[in-house]
Amino acid sequence: MGDGEAAESYRPRGFRAAGVRSGVKPSGGLDLAVFASAGPCSAAGTYTRNLIYAAPVAWDRARTPASSIRGVVINSGNANAATGDVGLSHARRTAQTAARLLGGDADEYLVASTGVIGRILPIEKLEAGLAVACSELSDEAASFDAAAQAILTTDTHTKMVSRRVTLSGREITLLGIAKGAAMIGPNMATMLGFLFTDAPVAAQDLDELLHAAVETSFNCISVEGHMSTNDTVLLLANGAAGGAPLSGRDLDEFAGVVNSACAELARMIPDDGEGATHLITIDVTGCRTRQDARTIARSVADSALVKTAIHGADPNWGRIVSAAGYAGVSFGTGPTLHVNDILLFADGSPVPFDEAAAAQSIRAQRETRIRLDFSEGSAAIRFWTCDLTAEYVRLNADYTT
Amino acid sequence: MGDGEAAESYRPRGFRAAGVRSGVKPSGGLDLAVFASAGPCSAAGTYTRNLIYAAPVAWDRARTPASSIRGVVINSGNANAATGDVGLSHARRTAQTAARLLGGDADEYLVASTGVIGRILPIEKLEAGLAVACSELSDEAASFDAAAQAILTTDTHTKMVSRRVTLSGREITLLGIAKGAAMIGPNMATMLGFLFTDAPVAAQDLDELLHAAVETSFNCISVEGHMSTNDTVLLLANGAAGGAPLSGRDLDEFAGVVNSACAELARMIPDDGEGATHLITIDVTGCRTRQDARTIARSVADSALVKTAIHGADPNWGRIVSAAGYAGVSFGTGPTLHVNDILLFADGSPVPFDEAAAAQSIRAQRETRIRLDFSEGSAAIRFWTCDLTAEYVRLNADYTT
Repeated sequence: MGDGEAAESYRPRGFRAAGVRSGVKPSGGLDLAVFASAGPCSAAGTYTRNLIYAAPVAWDRARTPASSIRGVVINSGNANAATGDVGLSHARRTAQTAARLLGGDADEYLVASTGVIGRILPIEKLEAGLAVACSELSDEAASFDAAAQAILTTDTHTKMVSRRVTLSGREITLLGIAKGAAMIGPNMATMLGFLFTDAPVAAQDLDELLHAAVETSFNCISVEGHMSTNDTVLLLANGAAGGAPLSGRDLDEFAGVVNSACAELARMIPDDGEGATHLITIDVTGCRTRQDARTIARSVADSALVKTAIHGADPNWGRIVSAAGYAGVSFGTGPTLHVNDILLFADGSPVPFDEAAAAQSIRAQRETRIRLDFSEGSAAIRFWTCDLTAEYVRLNADYTT
Repeated sequence: MGDGEAAESYRPRGFRAAGVRSGVKPSGGLDLAVFASAGPCSAAGTYTRNLIYAAPVAWDRARTPASSIRGVVINSGNANAATGDVGLSHARRTAQTAARLLGGDADEYLVASTGVIGRILPIEKLEAGLAVACSELSDEAASFDAAAQAILTTDTHTKMVSRRVTLSGREITLLGIAKGAAMIGPNMATMLGFLFTDAPVAAQDLDELLHAAVETSFNCISVEGHMSTNDTVLLLANGAAGGAPLSGRDLDEFAGVVNSACAELARMIPDDGEGATHLITIDVTGCRTRQDARTIARSVADSALVKTAIHGADPNWGRIVSAAGYAGVSFGTGPTLHVNDILLFADGSPVPFDEAAAAQSIRAQRETRIRLDFSEGSAAIRFWTCDLTAEYVRLNADYTT
């Protein structure tokens, strides 16, 4: 997990990036990112399950998994969501413009947007910015950093991870970037993640391993539990590392690399949650199924009373176990609960503990670890959220249209 | 709805009440309420679905519906939840003491608790207080007011409603009291509701009509969506109005009275939500089933982004329709949305509206009305919640054990 710093990041061969100011973002900041591959990529995507979904989600969903994707165009400052047929035509025009500038067909470009919902995308600005971005594409670290910056909205910093492994003698590199902290900002939406690798991977394999990775990473985070209209995670593999598509143990090992990179990226999102003072890691173990474990973890993670308790450094086990109790998953004797490795509740009953020491352990660290163990089976999940603070309320209430 | 003031409330014949200080509440306030009937009552109850439930819930659930209940004992200041076998024995002792003081068997008394979770009930204090309360029982308004006061925790005022109707020449009176704003307080739990009537109603009929009433009242409110360990609603009918048990049209009309009283009481709870500055009424119409409508309404009600938007007087339709979109209920073209009767979104697309006027209409009133109409069917629900404020965070975070 130590290579998350942009300055030390590896970059996969055959990918170039650019991040520019197109003017879509009223602040005038970087707001348009392009990632382009020298050769055609296998590509997989996972998307929001919200029935109110953005135009770029509709465009990408219809085109993944795919075996000949050439690039991705991402804008911030405007979500292109709830924009009807005009929005769909703008998503198409973005891909068409990328194809004209970089070669190939519009269907070989994916698009993503994040920002204000329900506003028409200023498509001329975006197209002019896209021309500049395509002329600036480079494989240097600074270009990837600019692209990672250009996809942010209310994030306080860029989110980037990379991995390098050798599989059967081939050096494989993976770079991932992300933005967002669920749907945190004033009128903002979206969690976006993009992963690029030079591994050769068949599109169907890529699709399967991305979905599996997202299940234990981006689908295990929340800030306030509000699912956005634009959530998108894309994984592009251009095969520039050479050789035949990964298979067997190499493919399994590569899947492990994707899992680990997704988990590290996902964790960064609630850690940067609007107003957050604590990252909360929730381990739920001993369940009958992983879905049961996730359902319980999400119930605890989405409880405003649990989140405010952690903010107040209060080892309030009653709020945690009662949130588990209403998750809708049946269990017998009740859980065993540790907070920061301090036992608070055992097999359904409270146990004596040093409340001052427990409070101090929460107060002293950025991360609070909640562990709930059931005696129902062997399935487990790790989930991340953040605390709920007055600053979160201020940031989301003091905005007035 | 105009008879909610305690001073004007009707009281059903044959019931007496008392509210006293037993010392269970560390503040020394009123903390023990007793309601007793001159004759045996039909009784029905509905309870929390949390798997972590309090001892009084276990006691009452095993004894309702019933046809010979004599009274109810309620303490505040201690939830008697997560207290194991000791807690169960304390619930039993409370009922036994009531039976000794007032006659009959322990099984003829129901109990309820609200307050801190996981603390052992100071049963001697409670028993001593119960002796005082039973000696003070009276049918006067002041006694019912004291009892309504004694069940409160962080509520800012008592919650009482009453109804009087004439059914086939019989004058029937119903009185209801409630406490709580979901699980709002520091370490506190519980929404409690108690309804008393002099109508003669068979236990099974009472059970059916109470469950139906709760479905559209207490099951249609939330503050932060955290289900407590102690939620309880009881309805006692002593038949003091005389005559045979209600049936046919009279029973239907009585059910309507119970529905209306429960809805009025339920609405008071989020209106008194911790830190709330707005009551939010959510009408979801045009769904295939009432459960679909409720699921969508709850998704909107539990969204921190919707709640902070209303707090900030922001007519942020993107947050509202996207919360509907992830509720898990399928729909076609998307909803039509009104906020305070202003059309913001029609058949899945935004419409132009006067944003300043919409913001002003939210700012100027205590109640904000959200109406989401789907074109899927004819089922509907009304749901109540409150806004999310920095004061809520402060009240729930600044408490440290």
